[in-house]
Amino acid sequence: MPVQPSALLTDLYQFTMLQGYLEQGMEETAVFEFFVRKLPPNRGFLMAAGLESALEFLETVHFTPQEVDWLAASGRFNRRFLDYVAGFRFSGEVHAMPEGTVFFPDEPILRLTAPIPQAQLVETRLINLLHYQCLVASKAARTVLAAPGKLLVDFGLRRAHGAEAGLLAARAAYIAGFSGTSNVLAEREFGVPCYGTMAHSFVQAHDDETAAFEHFARAQPDNVVLLIDTYDTEAAARKVAELALRLRRDGIRTKAVRLDSGDLGAHARAVRRILDQGGLPEVGIFASGNLDEFAVRELVSGGAPIDGFGVGTRMLTSADAPYLDCAYKLEEYAGQPRRKRSEGKATWPGRKQVYRNYDGAGAMERDVLTLDGDAHAGQGLLRPVMGQGRRLGPAVPLTESRALAALELGRLPEPLRRLGVSPPYPVEVAPALRELAAAVDARPV
Amino acid sequence: MPVQPSALLTDLYQFTMLQGYLEQGMEETAVFEFFVRKLPPNRGFLMAAGLESALEFLETVHFTPQEVDWLAASGRFNRRFLDYVAGFRFSGEVHAMPEGTVFFPDEPILRLTAPIPQAQLVETRLINLLHYQCLVASKAARTVLAAPGKLLVDFGLRRAHGAEAGLLAARAAYIAGFSGTSNVLAEREFGVPCYGTMAHSFVQAHDDETAAFEHFARAQPDNVVLLIDTYDTEAAARKVAELALRLRRDGIRTKAVRLDSGDLGAHARAVRRILDQGGLPEVGIFASGNLDEFAVRELVSGGAPIDGFGVGTRMLTSADAPYLDCAYKLEEYAGQPRRKRSEGKATWPGRKQVYRNYDGAGAMERDVLTLDGDAHAGQGLLRPVMGQGRRLGPAVPLTESRALAALELGRLPEPLRRLGVSPPYPVEVAPALRELAAAVDARPV
Repeated sequence: MPVQPSALLTDLYQFTMLQGYLEQGMEETAVFEFFVRKLPPNRGFLMAAGLESALEFLETVHFTPQEVDWLAASGRFNRRFLDYVAGFRFSGEVHAMPEGTVFFPDEPILRLTAPIPQAQLVETRLINLLHYQCLVASKAARTVLAAPGKLLVDFGLRRAHGAEAGLLAARAAYIAGFSGTSNVLAEREFGVPCYGTMAHSFVQAHDDETAAFEHFARAQPDNVVLLIDTYDTEAAARKVAELALRLRRDGIRTKAVRLDSGDLGAHARAVRRILDQGGLPEVGIFASGNLDEFAVRELVSGGAPIDGFGVGTRMLTSADAPYLDCAYKLEEYAGQPRRKRSEGKATWPGRKQVYRNYDGAGAMERDVLTLDGDAHAGQGLLRPVMGQGRRLGPAVPLTESRALAALELGRLPEPLRRLGVSPPYPVEVAPALRELAAAVDARPV
Repeated sequence: MPVQPSALLTDLYQFTMLQGYLEQGMEETAVFEFFVRKLPPNRGFLMAAGLESALEFLETVHFTPQEVDWLAASGRFNRRFLDYVAGFRFSGEVHAMPEGTVFFPDEPILRLTAPIPQAQLVETRLINLLHYQCLVASKAARTVLAAPGKLLVDFGLRRAHGAEAGLLAARAAYIAGFSGTSNVLAEREFGVPCYGTMAHSFVQAHDDETAAFEHFARAQPDNVVLLIDTYDTEAAARKVAELALRLRRDGIRTKAVRLDSGDLGAHARAVRRILDQGGLPEVGIFASGNLDEFAVRELVSGGAPIDGFGVGTRMLTSADAPYLDCAYKLEEYAGQPRRKRSEGKATWPGRKQVYRNYDGAGAMERDVLTLDGDAHAGQGLLRPVMGQGRRLGPAVPLTESRALAALELGRLPEPLRRLGVSPPYPVEVAPALRELAAAVDARPV
């Protein structure tokens, strides 16, 4: 992660509540869990991402003296509050599902245990980091399922919602199985491989389209991907066919052409024919322009001769479902399980664990949501990752999370691999958890 | 703006094209314009925002020695490229519509004039900054129209797409007419007034709901807004009614209660009755939870006794239209008008200006899109704001942009003030521009 933003990037109510907790001397241990309440329409599963960013945030979050002064000058806070934030560091525990894990509604993907002032104070940014990366990884995973064996590149930085969205999306999409990104900073910060071609403006700035192609190729002989839809796609493909032979004589290989508008499938077929007839079967076709998993699936299943896709805006904004109904909720305080009962937003109390079971072929079969300590068959998905405010091990390399995601997508039950509606994956709530919820509800408030 | 991210936050193709331009000695003047191709479904207008962020970016963008070294080590670039980026500063001109201006498809809101390597290199981040702020301002403006006289507060940071989205959205929504934000950093960075209440966890952490309310009120006597839906909304309202009288005796004023779930209109009516019967007409009702302009309009037009709204996720993700079909396109190079003709993505060539005309009552009547220098009746909306890479005047205060936005919303033709579909606002393309496009099309490529 690049520099975390100021600890003031939070909701004011975290501060007003903190002052309340401190005034009452309420500093006992709280357990909060981050989970998604329900799936977006037409989605069958979600993919966990953002944990490393969250852990880095927890390890580093603090208030600078200037920030404390500014809070003091606002006149909103008392001395006790200001002293607390001046010395604030996170010292709690975290259990979490590894990045790349497939998960379902009501399953916590992160459980945080810390004195309540700390656990509360980190809420906003934790949600902000986890929500967006889960959102993009979940969307990107669908594109990966729709385009087996194709090169997939994130092209979305420009219309991502701000700088950090562009950066975190490149990371999340790579975990989910994308090959790389157009975003240079994502390569530097995260090691996500970076891809780049050319824009229409490069062609437009030349009076002659062929000259534009040739200039680009000679300036970038190792990365010749030519954008051919600025004026007339097939006409440009013929220019490329002629040029590529000349370039070949000079030892320059034309890697691919890029299509960015019109009927991509029809253009791809026509362009493939032109390239093949020109003796250029090795020149690939790369397509972009308003793509998402549905468009990619249609092109792939229609047999369009396209070797790779640039997927941008619709993935980085998760356009069909631009947010997840997620929450970070208090499940236990001072040893007592807690539960919110708001209409439509009730939560399961207590510290929880998720057990996953697989069928004989290795496909996910059912999950059990239960209390931590109530052992069930299957694999426990939440593991300890932070203690006393420090990671328990080295940061997980992105390639490892990516490998896990690939394994997870391979284990998805067949109906969930489709892009449309599927029967919900079974997540059973264990009797121990139901009993605890009933007991909590019986307490007066 | 807080610190701009690294100049490496861009698409790789900006670098590959730069190397191409430099190899060919192509450094003549380019004119790029930023515009939106078409309105999202069910939208009648857009609002310009993000200009100050864009100008700050242009004034400060540069590559650090470490970044240049990293680019060199990537092996992708030649010496000429590396020398260029090492010395790169933006030295061009910008014309733009002021933030808060209402605009329509095909109308440039920003025109940038600079040597082509510079103009190209800033593309990605410029779009990234302008797109998102226009997106949020346009969405927020609709909520402002739907809730005249109500307090509107941005609550969306946690589910915004990353840190910067949360920050820029607070800014854009404030320009559009929101009263403030929950985001503390937005107050510090931009002076957007900050609002905060309490979360369910504060209530849950107490064994007794009334005790939670009282502790909060006594810790924050100047900002007593109590969240009453953690367990049973009306029961909590009765607790507040009793508590508020006790607090009043101690000189503490209960400002409002907050509803966050269930049927907000029905709860508001029941809670209003409880508060009024308790002799507390001065205690307001604030509502939040999955709100957008449609939900707010329904509550307002239904007469729900709600004094203010917290609007979050759906505004910050612009959930019904999470991106704009925007572009930053080359319109002129080396004195020659240029035009992209890609299917469905053709652009108008040349340096342009927009003239706006008003009817006798001061409402917007029609715009004319034409070439810069082709004077028409009406107000020219694009004004010079940067020359030689420096702002031509001091930064425009946010309150001034906000005042302009209010004026603009007041000038909207009546059909555009409604949230549904409206007849498109007339934007005429002047003959001079049509003739230029035809002339450009007649040139061979």
